[in-house]
Amino acid sequence: MIVVLAGGVGAARFLEGLVQVAPPEEIVAIINTGDDMVFHGLHVSPDIDIVTYTLAGIVDESQGWGVRDDTTHALSMLAQLGAETWFKLGDRDLAVHIRRTELLRAGWTLSEVTDAFRRALKVGVRLLPMSDDQVATEICTPVGWLHFQRYLVQRRARDEVLGVRFIGIDRACPAPGVIEALQQADAVIIAPSNPVVSVGTILAVPGVRDAVTSTPAPVVAVSPIVAGAPIKGPAAPLMRAVGLDVSARGVAVCYRGVIDTLIIDQADAGLADEIRAFGMEVAVTDTIMHGRAAKRRLAETALSAARTATRRRP
Amino acid sequence: MIVVLAGGVGAARFLEGLVQVAPPEEIVAIINTGDDMVFHGLHVSPDIDIVTYTLAGIVDESQGWGVRDDTTHALSMLAQLGAETWFKLGDRDLAVHIRRTELLRAGWTLSEVTDAFRRALKVGVRLLPMSDDQVATEICTPVGWLHFQRYLVQRRARDEVLGVRFIGIDRACPAPGVIEALQQADAVIIAPSNPVVSVGTILAVPGVRDAVTSTPAPVVAVSPIVAGAPIKGPAAPLMRAVGLDVSARGVAVCYRGVIDTLIIDQADAGLADEIRAFGMEVAVTDTIMHGRAAKRRLAETALSAARTATRRRP
Repeated sequence: MIVVLAGGVGAARFLEGLVQVAPPEEIVAIINTGDDMVFHGLHVSPDIDIVTYTLAGIVDESQGWGVRDDTTHALSMLAQLGAETWFKLGDRDLAVHIRRTELLRAGWTLSEVTDAFRRALKVGVRLLPMSDDQVATEICTPVGWLHFQRYLVQRRARDEVLGVRFIGIDRACPAPGVIEALQQADAVIIAPSNPVVSVGTILAVPGVRDAVTSTPAPVVAVSPIVAGAPIKGPAAPLMRAVGLDVSARGVAVCYRGVIDTLIIDQADAGLADEIRAFGMEVAVTDTIMHGRAAKRRLAETALSAARTATRRRP
Repeated sequence: MIVVLAGGVGAARFLEGLVQVAPPEEIVAIINTGDDMVFHGLHVSPDIDIVTYTLAGIVDESQGWGVRDDTTHALSMLAQLGAETWFKLGDRDLAVHIRRTELLRAGWTLSEVTDAFRRALKVGVRLLPMSDDQVATEICTPVGWLHFQRYLVQRRARDEVLGVRFIGIDRACPAPGVIEALQQADAVIIAPSNPVVSVGTILAVPGVRDAVTSTPAPVVAVSPIVAGAPIKGPAAPLMRAVGLDVSARGVAVCYRGVIDTLIIDQADAGLADEIRAFGMEVAVTDTIMHGRAAKRRLAETALSAARTATRRRP
């Protein structure tokens, strides 16, 4: 069993590669839910949806999220009725949030909903929310604490980032199967996701960091930072805000003691020795996932790094 | 002020005529909510929506309900996720239910939501739900009691109708403004709607029948039955089930003591004397509302009947 800690777009693309080289039913993704937010009274789980849509083959590949060729007729009408519509929700996408909300209100857990939806959409990979409890990632800015989506989408990440917190994290339990998957994994791979607000959130769920550090399986991470910049998303200001270099080295510092091997891009090969000094192995490859073959190659590299890893965690 | 008791399609078309001959801001529609139902966790108010969409000029005229040129992408996805989708909800239409549900959960009343939506959609006529309290029209059939929408839409009115009940009606209060509108009206018009489950439901809200019978204004009804058949909808089995003739005479029996004048179609002119014997005046005209001019003419006839009516109620 291969367990992947997953944020949104980067993780979804990595998983697209992984299902080319491993049976989907032997892969478990543990997905960040700190970015979840209620819009129009509907429970939206952006990272779960991105991963589900991507693996179902229905994602809008140009943006990395949402459903391909979706319309936004409901959103236009919502705007006409006075609703805030800065978070783009397509009509097909909205159906997912409508149904999720209905089932949650009927007493289903987020895990149960997530599993039902991935099955309905014929996704073979098991998808686990990091927790069935509500966690909200908030960003401290000069205008105050903002929900991550307000910071990222509504205000387009334009505010200075002064800090990050995960509201509700202390009382959150790992979702059923999360700890077991980590304990029983043959390999744990941290996808190229935001180390602070995607992977960082998952690791902050009580019990998860310990389960990762203590798993007998090799733990490999793919750096989401290439040549000093994230491939996508607001990792730079968030890493800086928590005192990390925006570099593969910063990623290494963040994951020190958690992983055995860090996979970095060729562009960062010069940092390899420095990173090894943090107590981890380094694998250098092309981490940019342009196209199906590139995704497969990165997944192969990650699996091969896991096979050859020696335990470097304390 | 002209007050109209309204069901769905027939009432909406009648109101389209009325706004051609009277200032919209002097018209109040009191609308049946017994057909309201929760679909996918969303509060749907079919009659309110039909009237709102029609007066906003966005209704799908061929079906009489829903939004013109709407898509059903969300519904397709809901079906894929295992939801029951026999009630057709377009994407723009869905936005209305999403927003309504959000506002109701936030503590708004149905009256407040309805008023906000008609203003947002530039409807000049005041629209009042009959009640802000939940009432559910149920139909007794050989397979048991069915919510009206299940009977009508899911099972296409194929079951024998054995009875009708309005769950919650005893505890329902008229919505704010309903009784006042009836008391202060210059004319009350019962639209050509189902006398049993649209108008009948409104009249069954405690206090409404009394307010209609005791209003100093003339009370005029337009028969929804022409030549022994309803123009649209399941009035026939419902009228039969409560012991009424499916005819303008049956309508007259139903409204006896409530109205001063019944407007019947030319096709039913032969029933006029019989209907007068029930203690009401009769006006005969073309009640089929094909086209804008026909709607205006019917509204003119109704207003003129109101102007010349003499009080015939007990």
